[in-house]
Amino acid sequence: MATSHFADRLVERIDATQSLLVVGLDPELGQLPPELLDGVDDLRSAAAAAARFCRAVIDGVADVAPAVKPQSAFFEAFGAAGLQALEEVSAHARAAGLLVIEDAKRGDIGSTMAAYAAASLGRVTIGGRELPVHDADAVTLSPYLGPESLQPMLDAADAHGKGLFVLVRTSNPGSARVQGLETADGRVFEQVARLLDELGAGRLGRCGWSSVGAVAGLTYPDDARVLRALMPRTLLLVPGLGPQGGAPEDFPLFVGDDGLGAVPAASRAVAGGWRAHDGAGGPDARVRDGARAAALSLTELLRGPLARAGRWRW
Amino acid sequence: MATSHFADRLVERIDATQSLLVVGLDPELGQLPPELLDGVDDLRSAAAAAARFCRAVIDGVADVAPAVKPQSAFFEAFGAAGLQALEEVSAHARAAGLLVIEDAKRGDIGSTMAAYAAASLGRVTIGGRELPVHDADAVTLSPYLGPESLQPMLDAADAHGKGLFVLVRTSNPGSARVQGLETADGRVFEQVARLLDELGAGRLGRCGWSSVGAVAGLTYPDDARVLRALMPRTLLLVPGLGPQGGAPEDFPLFVGDDGLGAVPAASRAVAGGWRAHDGAGGPDARVRDGARAAALSLTELLRGPLARAGRWRW
Repeated sequence: MATSHFADRLVERIDATQSLLVVGLDPELGQLPPELLDGVDDLRSAAAAAARFCRAVIDGVADVAPAVKPQSAFFEAFGAAGLQALEEVSAHARAAGLLVIEDAKRGDIGSTMAAYAAASLGRVTIGGRELPVHDADAVTLSPYLGPESLQPMLDAADAHGKGLFVLVRTSNPGSARVQGLETADGRVFEQVARLLDELGAGRLGRCGWSSVGAVAGLTYPDDARVLRALMPRTLLLVPGLGPQGGAPEDFPLFVGDDGLGAVPAASRAVAGGWRAHDGAGGPDARVRDGARAAALSLTELLRGPLARAGRWRW
Repeated sequence: MATSHFADRLVERIDATQSLLVVGLDPELGQLPPELLDGVDDLRSAAAAAARFCRAVIDGVADVAPAVKPQSAFFEAFGAAGLQALEEVSAHARAAGLLVIEDAKRGDIGSTMAAYAAASLGRVTIGGRELPVHDADAVTLSPYLGPESLQPMLDAADAHGKGLFVLVRTSNPGSARVQGLETADGRVFEQVARLLDELGAGRLGRCGWSSVGAVAGLTYPDDARVLRALMPRTLLLVPGLGPQGGAPEDFPLFVGDDGLGAVPAASRAVAGGWRAHDGAGGPDARVRDGARAAALSLTELLRGPLARAGRWRW
């Protein structure tokens, strides 16, 4: 059972793998090698193929990336069988030493948020016993219902050494229509950033980073300095590298002086690495080796900009 | 397969039951009669008890309420077995003629939102076949990622005669910290309301109401006139009656001249009706009869204020 601080566990994994990369697991069927789709004809067989694909990606990246980020939507698309697959994949990642950041973007209030917290990070009480469900190390959340709505997740994170990543400034082109609205005291996402900084202040690990993290897209580098200043101890989960148009050169803007404080998230760029590998060893080896090579290559891609900015840690 | 417009199907059900009430299904174990918890000692047995409870509530309200609203969190808390229960409960509700509004408050972008849309409202493509997953009639969503992020849900809703309810002004005390921020053009939730009005404009049913609905808490009646004016054709899902402090007298503020346009959501006030009934006929009958009596009583509670406001439809 994890009782040490989430940020400390993340930093330990980062140093052990000399990588900041969070590997997204988005098992859409169209992203799988055709061999894995043989005989797939219903939700159950689709979920099994998705799980097999994710296990192979995990086997490839376990010693070259600190964490994986299963995207709940791609598992939920296969119904109950998909949730079973998510549970299996998360257990496989934990057994391989990876941290699991569940990308669920949940947001609700009171007892409902407490139920989400029990499912993702905490324990469900049944017959007097406390049972883990997903037992993820961290979860992504939406702030639209206000910071008060996050409390049950904070409680679960505090009790079990887990972390949160709350949406602040997302990577999509239309995000400004709500997040970017100007208020008297900055844009909406700047106000959310301040609220998260407050929530995280009493929740620092030995490493100096907080268990209350934020999601900030690489596609808005101009806002990185603003966000870093408003949330100096907040871990940033940074999607947008590659297909969404984010540039590796911008990544150091999100990172602190210690070379920590931001982790880039990449999904297809890693899990789709099999496309650049031949299938001689079978589909599982192809996915595994392709993901490993792609993860190493992305870490290498970020090393240059980080080193030039004086933020390469090793 | 549902191909007629969501709002028209909802109005048809409202007229058939002479009720606006959306019955929330929040099967927390603490809300179940103790007899249903006999032998419950793991996630699977807990999910089975939750499903049995919800089936009894559905049997009680099927001819006195137009729709049920299963809260995804309380099913997800039981893991994959909970999702199986959600699927069974939704099917049971549909078979009883009720519409199903899945309360999931999802929000993501691009292919991820498309996966959520396929799971909740649409179809998943597997081996060339289009398979329904939850096949709900409508789903609740979060707008923090911007109106663009809702597009895959709009596409699924348009294709299958389904509806959306997007969070605008939620019923919790701290909601103002993000939704209530003042911008140059009104508070954040007013801007969201305008965006939803735009999205809904081309999506009206024969009844005149749109398939793009909004969630607006009964606990903020002062904002009801503002929201109604900004979104004159938007169906409002209105939680907050009872435990959260919303008053029945305020409900007519959310309703249009035709007595439609807003549906109150109540969960424990209905599903907990068994507490006021003896258990002579066994726990299933107790839950069923208690829910039916509570639903009738809530509809009656709203009839007075609606009639006085000239908005009682029958």
